[in-house]
Amino acid sequence: AANKPTAIAAADLETAAHLRDQALQDDTAYDFVAGITTEIGARLAGGPNDEKAREWTIAKFHALGFDKVWTEPVTYPKWVRRSEHGEILAPYAQPLALVALGYSAATPAGGLEAEVVGFPTLDALKAADPATLQGKIVFVGARMQAYRDGHDYGIGSAVRTGGPAIASHKGAAAFLLRSAGTDSNRLPHTGVTNFTGATPIPAAALSAPDADLLERMLASGKPVTIRLALDCGIEGQYTGANVIAELRGSKKPDEYFVMGGHLDSWDPGTGAIDDAAGVAIATGAAKVIAGLPKRPARSIRVVAFANEESGLFGGKSYAETHKATIGKAVLGSESDAGADRIWKITASVKPAARDAIAQIAAVLQPLGIEYDAKEPGNGGSDLSAVHAVGMAAVSLHQDATRYFDWHHTANDTLDKIDPQQLRQNVAAYAVTAYLAAQADGDFGSKPGAWANEHE
Amino acid sequence: AANKPTAIAAADLETAAHLRDQALQDDTAYDFVAGITTEIGARLAGGPNDEKAREWTIAKFHALGFDKVWTEPVTYPKWVRRSEHGEILAPYAQPLALVALGYSAATPAGGLEAEVVGFPTLDALKAADPATLQGKIVFVGARMQAYRDGHDYGIGSAVRTGGPAIASHKGAAAFLLRSAGTDSNRLPHTGVTNFTGATPIPAAALSAPDADLLERMLASGKPVTIRLALDCGIEGQYTGANVIAELRGSKKPDEYFVMGGHLDSWDPGTGAIDDAAGVAIATGAAKVIAGLPKRPARSIRVVAFANEESGLFGGKSYAETHKATIGKAVLGSESDAGADRIWKITASVKPAARDAIAQIAAVLQPLGIEYDAKEPGNGGSDLSAVHAVGMAAVSLHQDATRYFDWHHTANDTLDKIDPQQLRQNVAAYAVTAYLAAQADGDFGSKPGAWANEHE
Ligand SMILES: [Zn+2]
Ligand SMILES: [Zn+2]
Ligand SMILES: [Zn+2]
Ligand SMILES: [Zn+2]
Repeated sequence: AANKPTAIAAADLETAAHLRDQALQDDTAYDFVAGITTEIGARLAGGPNDEKAREWTIAKFHALGFDKVWTEPVTYPKWVRRSEHGEILAPYAQPLALVALGYSAATPAGGLEAEVVGFPTLDALKAADPATLQGKIVFVGARMQAYRDGHDYGIGSAVRTGGPAIASHKGAAAFLLRSAGTDSNRLPHTGVTNFTGATPIPAAALSAPDADLLERMLASGKPVTIRLALDCGIEGQYTGANVIAELRGSKKPDEYFVMGGHLDSWDPGTGAIDDAAGVAIATGAAKVIAGLPKRPARSIRVVAFANEESGLFGGKSYAETHKATIGKAVLGSESDAGADRIWKITASVKPAARDAIAQIAAVLQPLGIEYDAKEPGNGGSDLSAVHAVGMAAVSLHQDATRYFDWHHTANDTLDKIDPQQLRQNVAAYAVTAYLAAQADGDFGSKPGAWANEHE
Repeated sequence: AANKPTAIAAADLETAAHLRDQALQDDTAYDFVAGITTEIGARLAGGPNDEKAREWTIAKFHALGFDKVWTEPVTYPKWVRRSEHGEILAPYAQPLALVALGYSAATPAGGLEAEVVGFPTLDALKAADPATLQGKIVFVGARMQAYRDGHDYGIGSAVRTGGPAIASHKGAAAFLLRSAGTDSNRLPHTGVTNFTGATPIPAAALSAPDADLLERMLASGKPVTIRLALDCGIEGQYTGANVIAELRGSKKPDEYFVMGGHLDSWDPGTGAIDDAAGVAIATGAAKVIAGLPKRPARSIRVVAFANEESGLFGGKSYAETHKATIGKAVLGSESDAGADRIWKITASVKPAARDAIAQIAAVLQPLGIEYDAKEPGNGGSDLSAVHAVGMAAVSLHQDATRYFDWHHTANDTLDKIDPQQLRQNVAAYAVTAYLAAQADGDFGSKPGAWANEHE
């Protein structure tokens, strides 16, 4: 049976085309993002809105008529942001727009003052002699450019996640980076950093114009000193939850297609594009499927993951809880790159399921979505952790050109969601979910299935 | 002599064309903006950087080789911003990104909490029954669109300058507006308001996404309450100065062409586009003229005006000081709309000088600048006050499409200056200044000359 090609019936393709066109008229997803960003706002993991957002989402799932709604607990460190200030003291006094990174240590009360040593890239920092960095503030000024596939986030996120620990190992007192972003707004981009194996130090991101300013002063050759006052840190553990909703399958209810996004967000904005949109797209897609006269053969599961931002906690917890039965998760895809139009589908499925993916892609094609059969599709953020324990996965790639202008900043607000492009996303997810749930045959999910995949 | 047409010699037009092309290679203006935004930064009138910026500019003028540099004192109220916070308390708690307006009163210590009454336009507020506004926070949500001629600033600035006094007269406790801007960044736009004849109340601008959020809550029909804490206010008078630099004319040194910008800026940004650029453009233009083998017939005067932002104090003071001899100011133009390309020249000159303006416009034409002979040209912000006492004026209209995205926000930083477009501005000012200084005949400047002009 493993070699029998997975196939989708013509009638199902026709129903999927109908779902697609219906989704293009449906505003459930937009109403979800508008609702949660208006009524809850920022959703820092472990903060007061963590629970409020779960309650809001549970109520919304019930109101939308899902057959079953439940939660699965997830535990993670509770990192708290209280206040943050920075200023250049010399050679020219100027305030700095900055934001502490997740897991940043606090500065001593009253702040720290130190000279700045600047590096153009993370590699330059890696190559630095520790003797030159003792007690200094390290600054890395690497820049990102905007691309449709968002690939420069590889540069920015590497500096943010890896830079502070490297600076700490080399004896620096604190770490600053040019925000991992593609905009020129005076709104810094936060995000998590990783101090595993290192002593946490204060770490913060400067907005692009502030990074420019600092670089101009460094270029003057005069010593540059900064005063940094970050009041933040870890306050024990917190137990939140993944919020899960399901449409019960009519023939194989134990098997399911899974889609979702993460419910937490960074705190400067209201988490509209990152990632209320992801949860909303999955919810909107399930909603149009729920409108069919009959439930699909397999179940349709929507997951609003807990605390993706500080380390895929929701996804890893889901993977751990469900890995023994991961074969039941026939296929999955998470949305976590905003809500601009999807332009490409890729898949990590067994060879005998490739034709079925091509069938799905054919229904997506009128949405302007191309099928790239060569690249894998790891399912996206949290679901990549589930994919890693054996779930077959597709990735529906959003146009990320604008995403990193706003990502992890105060600018992540509802107005950045284009309702028309959001509906295109919902249509793509509805088609994919429905057809995976109806497919005759599986996509290769089983424990450990993709262990040798190179991604 | 008043009816003899003012004319420009062919050799001068040729020299002007040479100056134009030279200015397109000159970075004096960019260096000016980079220098003052890096070494001084924000320049709130009456704040500590008011004096620092004057000293910096005086030193820069000396370094650039002007023949004479001096100051003329200007006195104005010293309005101080200490802190500002706002948050929606109900129906859904959310923080607000807001900025106090210039001349805003402080809230009581500890802040004020009140219900919000929203209006879509200033006219709707004007029509409101005062009985409905007692002790309330008034919000006006009028929106601006971006245009090349920036005409929607008429909407936004009218709400900002006029709204708070109207709300005060009607008994409101505080005033909020949607920022007078065309962006969707979570960076509010400050600017002055006018409480003449009214009791000052706390008044602040919300960023566009925050205004959207407030409007969604108001649209829910539930009572909306806000807590506002502004610590700001007037602390007596301050005496600053206009900083003036001159290239001494070779034949009629007492007569002069005057150009400039204002040295003060709002405090959230570093005042790059508003208005270091204006002073820089005039300085750069004078610099290329100073490079000629011989000074022009008339003097070339550059003025860095004091405190334009809070009420044209520098311009009004200059007008008062020089009105008796305003005939010596043959023509003037101020740059105060950023540094994007100039697309149009207009003039308020005597009829017999129209041909000379057309001659100037012909040299500007290769820069992509059109001559609109029908519209007046009041010289711009501070110089409009000088025009009002009799100086003939031209306006070199910058493309303002992007200007109100950044104007009066933290985003007013060096990176918003396009060096290439800035050089086009310098070229246009150099041509205009040189040809006005060489013209055979005047442009109509005399005390009271434009009293009957309708603008
Ligand atoms: Zn995300
Ligand atoms: Zn994120
Ligand atoms: Zn201005
Ligand atoms: Zn201004």
